[in-house]
Amino acid sequence: MAIRYPNGKKFEKKRIPKTVKNDYKKDNSFSNRGMNFEDDIQTSNEFYRSQGLAVIHKKPTPLQIVNVHYPKRSAAVVTEAYFQKPSTTDFNGVYKGMYIDFEAKETKNKTSFPLKNFHAHQIEHMKAVLEQAGISFVLVHFRVHEEIYLVPGTFIVSWYESKENHRKSIPKIEIEENGFPVKTGYHPRIDYLASIDKWINGK
Amino acid sequence: MAIRYPNGKKFEKKRIPKTVKNDYKKDNSFSNRGMNFEDDIQTSNEFYRSQGLAVIHKKPTPLQIVNVHYPKRSAAVVTEAYFQKPSTTDFNGVYKGMYIDFEAKETKNKTSFPLKNFHAHQIEHMKAVLEQAGISFVLVHFRVHEEIYLVPGTFIVSWYESKENHRKSIPKIEIEENGFPVKTGYHPRIDYLASIDKWINGK
Repeated sequence: MAIRYPNGKKFEKKRIPKTVKNDYKKDNSFSNRGMNFEDDIQTSNEFYRSQGLAVIHKKPTPLQIVNVHYPKRSAAVVTEAYFQKPSTTDFNGVYKGMYIDFEAKETKNKTSFPLKNFHAHQIEHMKAVLEQAGISFVLVHFRVHEEIYLVPGTFIVSWYESKENHRKSIPKIEIEENGFPVKTGYHPRIDYLASIDKWINGK
Repeated sequence: MAIRYPNGKKFEKKRIPKTVKNDYKKDNSFSNRGMNFEDDIQTSNEFYRSQGLAVIHKKPTPLQIVNVHYPKRSAAVVTEAYFQKPSTTDFNGVYKGMYIDFEAKETKNKTSFPLKNFHAHQIEHMKAVLEQAGISFVLVHFRVHEEIYLVPGTFIVSWYESKENHRKSIPKIEIEENGFPVKTGYHPRIDYLASIDKWINGK
């Protein structure tokens, strides 16, 4: 399941400057290859929107604005701001009337998905969404295998909270068994809506 | 329908610095009185979340980050960023499985709600949400009357696109007839969920 990047430009959005989030990554091998998991999800979201299939957006990075400069005849410039921890997951929107809410996570780990990828408040958010009957999941990207899985929020939450497990990561085999593989391609690049359909309509 | 601000602090969140959006406002009378429509909606959202009634958040202000400084031993500082136009409405989330999507707008106008309050892309977003069977609306606050209405997205869109009307604003009487009044109080301050219930279950 290789991710291919043809040069077709039909759905290639205008490049916005990389957010600092990307710069934080210790391992840049993925972006060095001109690929970025989050960007690909956003491109897929644009495709879905353009086809009238779903309306799903990534939330902007929350910043605490401290100082703004208003030059005459020019746009306001934020001159001092700090990154804030997001209190929710990164992506949400609507698909056939259903509330869709998910987080995208990557791992270089070959055999398991480390739970340190989550903050407690993200798990709390997922639980709250599930209580409201929202569709909550995580898109997990195993970089080495170039495999993507849609993992239901219920599974993530129960693993995270399980006292018996007390593990710091979910074995990949568990994700294969409890998640749904996500096909990658040209348009959309990451077809997670198809995986939602499989999930909802039964495996 | 006066908006009262008792000093009870139970649901008073930590004051975050006012975003610049507020500073843009030509008329600051509302914030001068220590009141802010958007803040009150956010406080109401916190109340709803704390009670397990709904999970609805305001999206962060989108900023294009150009420069970031990384001082040693301190948090990263954004030293240059520009405000971007949001491509969606400000608030979204989930309520009893339903996707909720809305914008909050204020007017000082006594007899009508000016449509210049909307950008074309916001209307497009509302249409896209409606096509996905999402719950789309606008909370309109008439400052002078201190009245708030939940106005269904379908009504806003049809008025905006109507060639016959070709008006630049919606008369208040039309909003009273086609919208749903929103009660204000202590907790929640702006009880728009009750208005959604009335809307969905029939007037």
